Amino acid sequence: MSAFAISPRWKKVVIVGPGLIGASIGLALKRSGLVEQIVGVSRRNSTLEVAQASGAIDSGSCQLDATVRDATAVIVCTPVRRIAEQVITIAEHLQTEDRAWITDAGSAKEMIVRRVSDAEAGSEHAIPFVGSHPLAGSEQSGPRAARADLYDGRIVIVTPTAKTPPWLADEVHLFWTSLGAKVHRLTPTAHDRVLAATSHLPHALATALAAATLPDQLSLAATGWRDTTRIAAGNPDLWCDILLDNRTHILNSLDIFEKKLSAIRDALERQDSQQLKRLLEEGKQRRDSLGS
Amino acid sequence: MSAFAISPRWKKVVIVGPGLIGASIGLALKRSGLVEQIVGVSRRNSTLEVAQASGAIDSGSCQLDATVRDATAVIVCTPVRRIAEQVITIAEHLQTEDRAWITDAGSAKEMIVRRVSDAEAGSEHAIPFVGSHPLAGSEQSGPRAARADLYDGRIVIVTPTAKTPPWLADEVHLFWTSLGAKVHRLTPTAHDRVLAATSHLPHALATALAAATLPDQLSLAATGWRDTTRIAAGNPDLWCDILLDNRTHILNSLDIFEKKLSAIRDALERQDSQQLKRLLEEGKQRRDSLGS
Repeated sequence: MSAFAISPRWKKVVIVGPGLIGASIGLALKRSGLVEQIVGVSRRNSTLEVAQASGAIDSGSCQLDATVRDATAVIVCTPVRRIAEQVITIAEHLQTEDRAWITDAGSAKEMIVRRVSDAEAGSEHAIPFVGSHPLAGSEQSGPRAARADLYDGRIVIVTPTAKTPPWLADEVHLFWTSLGAKVHRLTPTAHDRVLAATSHLPHALATALAAATLPDQLSLAATGWRDTTRIAAGNPDLWCDILLDNRTHILNSLDIFEKKLSAIRDALERQDSQQLKRLLEEGKQRRDSLGS
Repeated sequence: MSAFAISPRWKKVVIVGPGLIGASIGLALKRSGLVEQIVGVSRRNSTLEVAQASGAIDSGSCQLDATVRDATAVIVCTPVRRIAEQVITIAEHLQTEDRAWITDAGSAKEMIVRRVSDAEAGSEHAIPFVGSHPLAGSEQSGPRAARADLYDGRIVIVTPTAKTPPWLADEVHLFWTSLGAKVHRLTPTAHDRVLAATSHLPHALATALAAATLPDQLSLAATGWRDTTRIAAGNPDLWCDILLDNRTHILNSLDIFEKKLSAIRDALERQDSQQLKRLLEEGKQRRDSLGS
């Protein structure tokens, strides 16, 4: 409870898919005091029950269409593959007059934004959507793992385009800030290019390394192997969608990576300690610039 | 102090290179109560002073030849490139009659053991050396980072060959056990093959990934990138030696890795979600079998 009352900025926020990401949004939003009512939408009753019991949502529904009708804001936290279609459906049913808006939490943005934009071009109404991607999460999933502080100090990338009205980008920016996050704005393409390099390619490499290690070698895997392969434990269905969605930028990042790796191979084959040391120093310098 | 007195098993243990690894051996050895005297050897007085101040060694010396003359055991904890030569020098000066022995703590074993074995073949005397590799350490280095519990529960691989006398392998085995470690025995070749896959290749990949990430993308690197590249912060000089020393097995492991990676590339290019999901599942299964 805050020391003084804050009038709620958002009357009814709908969270579609209140799993780890969505239910954590609910908990952080409650903590902010800026919301009057939070409704969760899921095809699974069990998800809604857990999210409601933890206080992440006030009530739950299996009906997307009816639930979003009078929403002030809708946050779509479903797997990447389903987001664009759901945003379009939500926009069709949203009847709130005064600047209601929609955002999402998907890990790839260009395809989603393009699909929504194509649907908008063929419709009579504007679709008040701007994409978001919170760089937070964990190898866990589901509403049971949700935490009110999941976004505290974490980066959320908001991806307006040239067509996005300023009020919409500002509102979604404010929304994430009120959950404790630091917001960066990037175009959908710039987002996907950076995330290919910093998240999606690392996932592909961790997967290839884990798969390339023989089972009988695992008993001798020390912390280095554990750190390097940790993200390979992520959900294969979700990651398959993310990697396919952002494949063009990932393939570009993979080309850059493979040039570095083949320089290392070359140095090993030619026993060229100068080249090898130069590469190790370059990697260390890049890594040290971030901290542990 | 133990509740009852233990008679020391090792009269004089010499630690060559009392940095993080060596000074931690000194601290753990003191804790075991199984040693009478520990002498550190280093070219740097500052290293000896820090190690002595922390109690990791009782005294220090810059003279390898004179110091090892009456040693019961010598542990060579210097960089991989210098180990074989030092072991051969130590064996020449070791005059203790009754089963004195030498081991090391290097991360690659085949080359070291072969060089020592070649020197032994051309000499009148046996060289009482068996290789060791403690799978412990940290990104820190130097005696200031040393800890008495560094080896508690950690794996140490001891690498006897067909020519190693059983008493020698048993004595070194007992030594590491008394420091709290769990000992595995492998041939030098088996060691290098496993470590190529579980440690040296991961280091090369972390380096290539860190070097392939552009500086302006780093501000958006989340935990996945941090975990996957953590070991790239290791000392380039030390790792250059390790990777070159074990290059044959590393190149073999790299071939296996590249087959998996090119299967991922292929699945992305052909948008083959079934193949991609199968690879992600394989990586997850391998990773999950270890735990976090």
